[in-house]
Amino acid sequence: MSRWSFVYEGFDPGQEGLREALCTLGNGYFATRGAAAEADADDVHYPGTYLAGGYNRRITEIDGRIIENEDLVNLPNWLCLTFRIEGGEWFDLRKVAIDSYRQELDLKRGLLIRTVRFRDSEDRLTTLVSRRFVDMSHPHFAGLETTLTAENWSGRVRVRSALDGRVVNAGIKRYRQLNNKHLEPLETGVVGGDGLWLKVRTNQSRIEIALAARTRLFRDGEAVAVRRRTIRKRDYVAQEVSCNVTAGSNVTIEKIVSLFTSRDRGISESGLEARAAIERAGGFDDLLENHVLAWQHLWERCDIDVTNSDRTTLILRLHIFHLLQTASLHTIDLDVGVPARGWHGEAYRGHIFWDELFIFPFLNYRLPELTRALLLYRYRRLPEARWAAKEAGYRGAMYPWQGGSNGREESQRLHLNPQSGRWLVDSSYLQRHINAAIAYKIWEYYQVTNDTEFLYFYGAEMLLEIARFWASIATYNADLDRYEIHHVMGPDEYHDGYPGAAVPGLSNNAYTNIMAVWVLCRALEALYTLPGERRRELCELLRLEQEEIDRWEDVSRKMRVVFHDDGIISQFEGYDRLAELDWNAYRKKYGDIQRLDRILEAEGDTPNRYKASKQADVLMLFYLFSADGLRDLFGRLGYPFEYDTIPKNVHYYLQRTSHGSTLSRVVHSWVLARSDRPRSWRLFAEALESDIADIQGGTTAEGIHLGAMAGTVDLMQRGYTGIVARGDVLWFNPCLPDETASLSLRVRYRQRWLEVEVTGDWLKVTAHNESVEPIKLGFKERVCELEPGETKGFAL
Amino acid sequence: MSRWSFVYEGFDPGQEGLREALCTLGNGYFATRGAAAEADADDVHYPGTYLAGGYNRRITEIDGRIIENEDLVNLPNWLCLTFRIEGGEWFDLRKVAIDSYRQELDLKRGLLIRTVRFRDSEDRLTTLVSRRFVDMSHPHFAGLETTLTAENWSGRVRVRSALDGRVVNAGIKRYRQLNNKHLEPLETGVVGGDGLWLKVRTNQSRIEIALAARTRLFRDGEAVAVRRRTIRKRDYVAQEVSCNVTAGSNVTIEKIVSLFTSRDRGISESGLEARAAIERAGGFDDLLENHVLAWQHLWERCDIDVTNSDRTTLILRLHIFHLLQTASLHTIDLDVGVPARGWHGEAYRGHIFWDELFIFPFLNYRLPELTRALLLYRYRRLPEARWAAKEAGYRGAMYPWQGGSNGREESQRLHLNPQSGRWLVDSSYLQRHINAAIAYKIWEYYQVTNDTEFLYFYGAEMLLEIARFWASIATYNADLDRYEIHHVMGPDEYHDGYPGAAVPGLSNNAYTNIMAVWVLCRALEALYTLPGERRRELCELLRLEQEEIDRWEDVSRKMRVVFHDDGIISQFEGYDRLAELDWNAYRKKYGDIQRLDRILEAEGDTPNRYKASKQADVLMLFYLFSADGLRDLFGRLGYPFEYDTIPKNVHYYLQRTSHGSTLSRVVHSWVLARSDRPRSWRLFAEALESDIADIQGGTTAEGIHLGAMAGTVDLMQRGYTGIVARGDVLWFNPCLPDETASLSLRVRYRQRWLEVEVTGDWLKVTAHNESVEPIKLGFKERVCELEPGETKGFAL
Repeated sequence: MSRWSFVYEGFDPGQEGLREALCTLGNGYFATRGAAAEADADDVHYPGTYLAGGYNRRITEIDGRIIENEDLVNLPNWLCLTFRIEGGEWFDLRKVAIDSYRQELDLKRGLLIRTVRFRDSEDRLTTLVSRRFVDMSHPHFAGLETTLTAENWSGRVRVRSALDGRVVNAGIKRYRQLNNKHLEPLETGVVGGDGLWLKVRTNQSRIEIALAARTRLFRDGEAVAVRRRTIRKRDYVAQEVSCNVTAGSNVTIEKIVSLFTSRDRGISESGLEARAAIERAGGFDDLLENHVLAWQHLWERCDIDVTNSDRTTLILRLHIFHLLQTASLHTIDLDVGVPARGWHGEAYRGHIFWDELFIFPFLNYRLPELTRALLLYRYRRLPEARWAAKEAGYRGAMYPWQGGSNGREESQRLHLNPQSGRWLVDSSYLQRHINAAIAYKIWEYYQVTNDTEFLYFYGAEMLLEIARFWASIATYNADLDRYEIHHVMGPDEYHDGYPGAAVPGLSNNAYTNIMAVWVLCRALEALYTLPGERRRELCELLRLEQEEIDRWEDVSRKMRVVFHDDGIISQFEGYDRLAELDWNAYRKKYGDIQRLDRILEAEGDTPNRYKASKQADVLMLFYLFSADGLRDLFGRLGYPFEYDTIPKNVHYYLQRTSHGSTLSRVVHSWVLARSDRPRSWRLFAEALESDIADIQGGTTAEGIHLGAMAGTVDLMQRGYTGIVARGDVLWFNPCLPDETASLSLRVRYRQRWLEVEVTGDWLKVTAHNESVEPIKLGFKERVCELEPGETKGFAL
Repeated sequence: MSRWSFVYEGFDPGQEGLREALCTLGNGYFATRGAAAEADADDVHYPGTYLAGGYNRRITEIDGRIIENEDLVNLPNWLCLTFRIEGGEWFDLRKVAIDSYRQELDLKRGLLIRTVRFRDSEDRLTTLVSRRFVDMSHPHFAGLETTLTAENWSGRVRVRSALDGRVVNAGIKRYRQLNNKHLEPLETGVVGGDGLWLKVRTNQSRIEIALAARTRLFRDGEAVAVRRRTIRKRDYVAQEVSCNVTAGSNVTIEKIVSLFTSRDRGISESGLEARAAIERAGGFDDLLENHVLAWQHLWERCDIDVTNSDRTTLILRLHIFHLLQTASLHTIDLDVGVPARGWHGEAYRGHIFWDELFIFPFLNYRLPELTRALLLYRYRRLPEARWAAKEAGYRGAMYPWQGGSNGREESQRLHLNPQSGRWLVDSSYLQRHINAAIAYKIWEYYQVTNDTEFLYFYGAEMLLEIARFWASIATYNADLDRYEIHHVMGPDEYHDGYPGAAVPGLSNNAYTNIMAVWVLCRALEALYTLPGERRRELCELLRLEQEEIDRWEDVSRKMRVVFHDDGIISQFEGYDRLAELDWNAYRKKYGDIQRLDRILEAEGDTPNRYKASKQADVLMLFYLFSADGLRDLFGRLGYPFEYDTIPKNVHYYLQRTSHGSTLSRVVHSWVLARSDRPRSWRLFAEALESDIADIQGGTTAEGIHLGAMAGTVDLMQRGYTGIVARGDVLWFNPCLPDETASLSLRVRYRQRWLEVEVTGDWLKVTAHNESVEPIKLGFKERVCELEPGETKGFAL
């Protein structure tokens, strides 16, 4: 098994959705999810190409009907390329006899290669090799090269190459009742001798999207001059060309496509730019060469070398590959967040959730320019978050659980349980913990990069406004002399309220409350470390008075955390009074109970009644913080934190968890990494397979689970090396699983690269020679300095 | 005279263009140049509001006719607000008897206040006070408050408030034959109970622009509920409201406006955002409070305190004010360069020239976040510059002399001499020295900030590509064993070729050649200081081989500089063979000979024949480099650089200069600052008056001269303090003019603020306490360390 190529053999139409999601190509600017055949069948519109940007969507209820305005937008299809051999039909994979079929995603080069040998109804044998990429060196380009070899026939081949604006969003079956036509045609035309162009506009956000395509023919490698017939409609434009081919020889069709939108920087008008680009573009091989070089540079920064099974390595690389083509260097200058499903499918409609919490750390230690851009995406939406807080009666900034393109809350208020067919009230917008996740990322970025300019001008403002929100949502309970947070949801979506309660939400969700305390502490820390002048400026801008800061201090020391049994942190107040679920009975009855919520609802029951979690959110604390960090937080609050608090809680909650989220396996593997290595590895292995094996049964075809993908890579990067950036020290605490003999990777810490190697016995860290200052390394409570160019080794 | 308020008394319609230019309000996002009266006369479309962004323009010649597609775009007019007193006409300043008229630009608060007492035909006396701002704290807002006091009458007042999309570009008389209608109407409507909105699109670049306005009435400070009559056309929307007013009481009309464009970040759709903003906005005073606070913070960073005449101080502050509202903190997240005339007028059509060379230093030492953004504007246009170089037969990147919105060359190929009425071939695009100016700014930014991340990821790539261009445009002259550069123009636009030559351009322009050498040296320095890995990556990306680098080294040592007479650096090869101009004769005959080029052309002659410069470009070298720096450069080339090279050349060229450019006075004042202080001060004083007094006779009304404004401030900041950032040291070499007793200012150097005070006798530098590291100060060849919080004094 190759460690760089992800290969499918055989053509299986039933698996095409999954394959397409896993083989999606992208460059951060646009993504292309290929159709099984790039056939240009007039009746089939492949959900082929997505536009980056989390473009807007709004669900409005009118007279009880749900109207969908806009969604993650399918771009016009640029892949449309088909052909017919003299006297035959237009090529259709489903209508020929397939001799062999092989699809290879070359991760190293970012190239998708398909080889099909097929026989048509007249027994003509043809080999089709197509190569395709979405350019990582130039965000506006993509290329498709199709070579047909006439194995046993001669004749004329007619080729049709098109740009198709008639696409709809049809990738998710259960969304199909919603409006799914998001593009309005604007104009089509021809350009130069060999080009086409098409321009459309998204119907709600009115973003103009222009594509241009250049199609050229080569016979046995020699350019062929051809006459072109143009088919031009308002929403579709095609060229037909033809040439003769003789047995044993081949014809290559090269299609280069450019894409610009009206939101691009440095442009005049998107159509003009798309046309100019295609007239200036080099050939397929020229573009490919630069594209491969860009990938080479990315891999040099981002690869993880593990001595492990080929399969583990390959899947980790597949995950890194998808991360890098979703949040890519090209997104730095765009204004995009990271949608839960990447640009690989329509599920969750491109909304921005908290998944960055899992995606951020891998990128933050490799490409901090990129994580900075992700934080600026949030900064631009600070005014909207302020407005949301104000509307909800709070102070500061309240970021949305599901963010649309302008940062507005877009969480659904109703959702469908396909198992019962019922539309249910959805309170998931009450997941205010998203605000802690954003603060956490700001702090992580600052710790790892020491980018004080970012903290002064953007980070501190967000942090203070989020802290302010937490202080204002907390209410004081005089009886207990504690602060409480009511009417929220934790990450465990099985619990959205108390059984029978009229109002949704829970009280004193432990994860939420402790994160709020942590945010308040960091806000206070930021405030006191800001240069005096900037602190004064910020306090003036935010009208932040000492009285309010004093309240932060108070809340951060008196937040309530509820415990039950013997030192178990209650997921929320009242958790202990819930019933135990008969897990065995449900497993026996339903087999897969990952979606226990749907099962219970269909039975007329609700998970709110049970000690049962989709993901155990108390355990998130052990994922985000070290034991020392938690001891400090609990100590600050005057709560006990014993040496066995972590294992006891892990043990308690893992028994009560259905793993209904792909993220939960990552979290659980992480928290077990030191206490139960075999079980941790099993969970890691499952998380690794999430999308490859589509373990949720169909959800991968709707788009990959980017957070889970990133989480597995981060388990290698931070989980097993124990890397933590705290204060001015980069701490290491390696602990490899038995299955991994050694691990080597690089991390970027405070503007320099470090090479990290871990085996079972030792840790070795080398600093590149690119700075004059040493950095501080921490290992087992000892801190030492590492000079530029120096290597230090530590026995484990 | 106030040092903070710029005041006009009296109403003078003939001077309104000048006043409007000088009193333009802006915030980097949009600017508002007020009409004399905000009258909403249906037949007058004030060129009121400009869109930031250097939006695109293309001049095409079709059948000999010049077609203009788009220009710096006039926004829809949001100021439209007029009223009629019962029984009277709609208010028109030109039709009433004006008792008193006072216009005040409050620089400290960014507020324009107009007070008019007038008497109408029925002898009713009214006082009108209008206050207006373009919000510096929230880029999308502007506010206009108009208070009418009925001095001697009672009656009903009807008010009309509108948004007018029928504007054209009509600010420049000589452009009026070109197409000047750039906006297409899209839609208008009402919003909420008291709002209007209007949406238009620029006709070439297709940028959508949405405005919304909320109009409220107050009588003696109490809100008045009014009925509204809406007038709605496709390109104009207005509301009429009315209320009674009694003698001695007043009515206040508050108009708050929001503006969004389709290029904005963090938005869904511009119309939706504009409407939401206006519904959420606070009142005039609320917005004003934040606006004033934003200005307060800006002034704390950017003011210069000189003990000088009130007038000097006031004008310096006016210049800083205009700089900060053109290149503002709000432009950081946009994609804009700095147009030659700011957003204050239509001249030069918003194109981006080399003016940043003069504007950059002031901002770079105060708001480096902003200068970084200006460099990123160039970085985004690097692909276009590469294409331009390739098309012209060169390597690397060739930036345009006049850049349009996508970085394309937009220099006119013909221009009109109004004096002769002839259209002339214009070769100003041959000013390749713009490429040295960009490299110079990159290096300045890097020296002052030590922002290595910027250098690694953006700066070095631009620098290397520009160096590559210079090496490729240079040709080797084997006879002399020297490299030469042919067919270019220097900054002196009087010389665009040799008299009678068929091909435009000059050979071996000294400024260009020496700047090319400097760029090559910096590119080599950057290459050798980059971390090894980044250097390898960049060389791979740019296909930069050792052979090419060796050529850079060679060109940088053998570039030709031509001399004549006794050590005079020839402005270009052959300058010595030109005729001397009879300056006195021309001064006698024409008086003002700033536009000597037009005079000579109208006489059938050409400045190409004479030793006569618009601005002496050899002297630019003494402006940009210290004597030490030039000695190094000349030494590298094997040319002599004597102790008297600078004064000799200054003396020689100043005699042959007409000062046809507002920038030249700044440059000449600078180069004389140490050798001829009285003359330097005279030139400084003239530069200071450039726009206030409109010394070019009418050009200020077409837009201020931002480069000259910035230059005067920079003379204070760097010229008289002698501040230079070189290597890791910040050097000082103060030399105050006699007219200035003391000077204090702050500069931001490598992430910390320094307070600098200079008198005739001493220099004092204090570092803010915001970093752990000391910085290095240089004074008179001695370098010392300045710790955070420390003050150091030096006797001069």
